[in-house]
Amino acid sequence: MAEREEQQRKGISRRGLFGAAGAAVATGVAGYAAHSVIATPESQASDSSGPVEFHGPHQAGIVTPAQDRLHFATFDVTAGKRDALVSLLKEWTAAAALITAGRDIGQYGAVNGPGEAPPEDTGEAVGLPPARLTLTIGFGPSLFVDAKGNDRFGLADRRPAALADLPHFIGDTLDPARSGGDIAIQACSDDPQVAVHAIRNLARIGFGTTAVRYSQLGFGRTSSTSRAQTTPRNLFGFKDGTNNLKLEDTAKLEQQLWVQPGDGPDWMTGGSYLVARRIRMTIETWDRTSLSEQETIVGRGKGTGAPLGKADEFDPIDFEAKGADGEYKVAKDSHVRLAHPQFNNGAELLRRGYNFVDGSDGLGRLNAGLFFLAYQRDPRKQFIPIQQQLSRSDVMNEYIRHVGSGIFACPGGVQAGSFWGEKLFA
Amino acid sequence: MAEREEQQRKGISRRGLFGAAGAAVATGVAGYAAHSVIATPESQASDSSGPVEFHGPHQAGIVTPAQDRLHFATFDVTAGKRDALVSLLKEWTAAAALITAGRDIGQYGAVNGPGEAPPEDTGEAVGLPPARLTLTIGFGPSLFVDAKGNDRFGLADRRPAALADLPHFIGDTLDPARSGGDIAIQACSDDPQVAVHAIRNLARIGFGTTAVRYSQLGFGRTSSTSRAQTTPRNLFGFKDGTNNLKLEDTAKLEQQLWVQPGDGPDWMTGGSYLVARRIRMTIETWDRTSLSEQETIVGRGKGTGAPLGKADEFDPIDFEAKGADGEYKVAKDSHVRLAHPQFNNGAELLRRGYNFVDGSDGLGRLNAGLFFLAYQRDPRKQFIPIQQQLSRSDVMNEYIRHVGSGIFACPGGVQAGSFWGEKLFA
Ligand code: HEM
Ligand code: HEM
Repeated sequence: MAEREEQQRKGISRRGLFGAAGAAVATGVAGYAAHSVIATPESQASDSSGPVEFHGPHQAGIVTPAQDRLHFATFDVTAGKRDALVSLLKEWTAAAALITAGRDIGQYGAVNGPGEAPPEDTGEAVGLPPARLTLTIGFGPSLFVDAKGNDRFGLADRRPAALADLPHFIGDTLDPARSGGDIAIQACSDDPQVAVHAIRNLARIGFGTTAVRYSQLGFGRTSSTSRAQTTPRNLFGFKDGTNNLKLEDTAKLEQQLWVQPGDGPDWMTGGSYLVARRIRMTIETWDRTSLSEQETIVGRGKGTGAPLGKADEFDPIDFEAKGADGEYKVAKDSHVRLAHPQFNNGAELLRRGYNFVDGSDGLGRLNAGLFFLAYQRDPRKQFIPIQQQLSRSDVMNEYIRHVGSGIFACPGGVQAGSFWGEKLFA
Repeated sequence: MAEREEQQRKGISRRGLFGAAGAAVATGVAGYAAHSVIATPESQASDSSGPVEFHGPHQAGIVTPAQDRLHFATFDVTAGKRDALVSLLKEWTAAAALITAGRDIGQYGAVNGPGEAPPEDTGEAVGLPPARLTLTIGFGPSLFVDAKGNDRFGLADRRPAALADLPHFIGDTLDPARSGGDIAIQACSDDPQVAVHAIRNLARIGFGTTAVRYSQLGFGRTSSTSRAQTTPRNLFGFKDGTNNLKLEDTAKLEQQLWVQPGDGPDWMTGGSYLVARRIRMTIETWDRTSLSEQETIVGRGKGTGAPLGKADEFDPIDFEAKGADGEYKVAKDSHVRLAHPQFNNGAELLRRGYNFVDGSDGLGRLNAGLFFLAYQRDPRKQFIPIQQQLSRSDVMNEYIRHVGSGIFACPGGVQAGSFWGEKLFA
């Protein structure tokens, strides 16, 4: 542990070794170059290869302009008491700070003499840039009180009321193996190998204390979280993320996204609640639906993404406008109407989901869908009522099925010298 | 069918609509812009967004510099006779030519009046560039004679001897649901959404005639197929693809990769045989192995990728060199020795595999590995003997498990006006 921290402090570098800045030092181990040089990242650029700052008032990976790829995992704490959990969170935080900066976690080996110990970093991201990696942690209800009612870590009285157990929604067919988890880690990056590497190395550090409960790759983002981003398309072929909370909406973010002082326990101030839903999309059925039916269901045009009756994607939706047939142009049971703040007491979400295809389903169809991720200040006022309304009335339900679910309390940002969730244990 | 072909002929354009070259025409359908403009692709560039030519003497996607992402699927023909299969291959070929050029497959709708028909293209790649998409087809043994011994399509006597049933290899634990298939389609692209879109739309066109048997996403390439590419890393953290057949080895490709006149039935001339193996890697165990052990198993350094005892990745391997201890520097049972042409009667492979992570395995571990793809002139002289040797002696076997398998005859390239496998049915 002390040795690992020592190495982490040295700032073993992924960029430094192979990048232009690197002055790699070859050691005696055959063909092996030790990572002993501290990197001077040439840029903190916001381009798709640069690093995203890990430290700050809020966790990165929430309003960060949505990266292209996702590796999401939840973990169960399988052994150990409060102290072991705190140690793990410290180790994870140190590792997260390194890998988000594009560095490896410690050396390849050389702990007990060259080559005789397992490498500390698994190595598959060597030579790759930071690729805008962000790592975002959240704590699930079971970390506070587990299914058997045990307060394993002495945290029961620190559970925020907003970290509500999600109710059963109409149509839910949840797979327990793809739901829940004591801890969630969301890795987003523009390079999937970098995101995979991050989760894998955190899983490895956690080995003995935690086990991966489930893991989900997302190959393409389905949301924009900045006005500077173009809106991507989901697997129904529609632009997704148009009316999303965006990082530029700073005032609204305080109102809708970030937990404010007094909202609940102090340790969550500056944090946000994450709801994750694995939503299977029966794309084969959708693909046999007519274009006009598809557009009616969504409430937007497929090509432009504009609200029905409007021309441009970002035109405001006119919920009153009617066509010559006397019907609302944006139908009463359309997805965007049912999900819009005007019909949800002003509630909004920061959506940050990803498309997935996990092979095929044994019935000759692709196992495809949306791994829905949404951040918010209070799920009791945001995700839960919105989803209650959607699950009751959204015609889109004919084409989707919620098969996995999780809710997580994501604490505020990490300051240098602190660790993920420090205030929770204070 | 005639209508679809008519639309395909018109060259409905993905680039044309949203790219700079596009003069999109808005139709009456609310917010929907019809794709009625023929694209003039600005570039046939080899950059990661440009198109790769679909037509040519060989199929694209074999020596094409390996793209970053994979969507691979195999299909079973579930209904119809020879004619239906030929029609499908024609439709698939026309669609493949369009989407590899970055175009949509027909319009969003408007077949029987605006918006009343299902869109012909599923739409999720609208606005995306061609992203070097290649689509490569192969025919499995079961297309010629199925498991019950039926010659469903009158092809029994056209089966090449080189399309051998793969023998059982020591350690094989194959899942039938992830093995075999009448037809395989490999979609490679630098954008996963483009690769997913391609397989999905081909699956959709095949609906009623074929069913997806299995589908596999690969998030990162594990091979280079050109000397212009840097060597990527597999999930053991090692450079993979160093000693691979490369597109620049033109003389060797004739000898090792492309089926030559006289090798077997004419219809395979200019083609190649694909072996696909889903190889699960128990990365958690590997990660607990010391660096020197890992390097001994592979026979190369982890940092540099150089052969043990050498300094540079591309230095030739010295299989005779011994260390001070009298042992071979590149161990007798190392992977690179056992797989090297010198110990396999000169046999080589063009490897084109991808890393995968398909969630977790229910035991707290990532379900991760290598989706191994290798092209060759004759599997009886190449993949089969090499894998027999590896399965017997490779120490790496302690850390890997072959769980899926397939072999496919990939015919020569498609000429404009022809279709995938035309000569097979001639
Ligand atoms: C597979 C499932 C889903 C699909 C395909 C889908 C698709 C879409 C699309 C195409 C839009 C319009 C573009 C935009 O403004 O982003 C949209 C908007 C929206 N969706 Fe969904 N969605 C899904 C599930 C959900 C769920 C589960 C929720 C929350 C419970 C949700 C909440 C919203 C919200 C709040 C909006 C913005 C509405 C507005 O203010 O205009 N969606 N969705
Ligand atoms: C998960 C399984 C595998 C892993 C992790 C793996 C990894 C590697 C690595 C790291 C190299 C050295 C770099 C290079 O020259 O590309 C290599 C070389 C090679 N591998 Fe594998 N490999 C695997 C399976 C296979 C299989 C199944 C075959 C064929 C039956 C194979 C055939 C080869 C060949 C022909 C070479 C080049 C040897 C030479 O000529 O130097 N590999 N592999």
